[in-house]
Amino acid sequence: MNSEEAQIRERLDQWARALRAKDLDRLMAFYAPEVITFDMVPPLQVSGADNYRKHWSQWFESMSGPITHETRELVVAVGGDVAYAHQLSLVGGAQKGGNSSESWIRTTTGLRKMGGQWLITHEHVSVPFDMESGKADMELTP
Amino acid sequence: MNSEEAQIRERLDQWARALRAKDLDRLMAFYAPEVITFDMVPPLQVSGADNYRKHWSQWFESMSGPITHETRELVVAVGGDVAYAHQLSLVGGAQKGGNSSESWIRTTTGLRKMGGQWLITHEHVSVPFDMESGKADMELTP
Repeated sequence: MNSEEAQIRERLDQWARALRAKDLDRLMAFYAPEVITFDMVPPLQVSGADNYRKHWSQWFESMSGPITHETRELVVAVGGDVAYAHQLSLVGGAQKGGNSSESWIRTTTGLRKMGGQWLITHEHVSVPFDMESGKADMELTP
Repeated sequence: MNSEEAQIRERLDQWARALRAKDLDRLMAFYAPEVITFDMVPPLQVSGADNYRKHWSQWFESMSGPITHETRELVVAVGGDVAYAHQLSLVGGAQKGGNSSESWIRTTTGLRKMGGQWLITHEHVSVPFDMESGKADMELTP
């Protein structure tokens, strides 16, 4: 592993810590202002960190307690000032007025080194859907 | 646009041509043998081109006629021998014994230059799902 890959792994670990802490400001500091994201929920694409912040904010507000986030099978590829990473994550928590749940999701992250710092310039988060029911399959395991 | 980005855009265009032609061998030639993919349907992750080939094969066989694939909002980031790209695609066709449909999907592609050729080392394809119904939302537009 080269030092750039180590830096990115450290950044993604810090990102997950901010997520678990539901610390919106700290979380958003990992994103480039012009980030383009494909989120688990509509719309198809969100352009800009300000708009993406609203997605995180709404999710954090919908959760009554702590959020868990465990990473598995993280792969990082780095070339010069561009990188991508992908991982499976087990994400859990209790929704306000709802049940606790825990689901495996897939995340692909695009990064660029800007001003000496790796920033997230693209993020794609999803779960597969079942062809017969058309429903997102929240009960898959790796 | 530098020449590496132009090469990748040309490769992704050729990839889409192979998809529209339902030419499985030509399509699979764009993937690295060790590609890791997150497909629209289960499982969470598919490892290796041989396994991913089965996904494409099943999809091609489920379609009775031609497949359409139109790319919009393609972004390519290249650094050295690593790149990522993301796009929205309008994909359509007629299922055997079913109706014709057309849906917008999101694709993120990770690439590495190997032996002078850009190969796909990661692919993440998804649609968002509606929070209330839990169903994949196939009717979104950009």
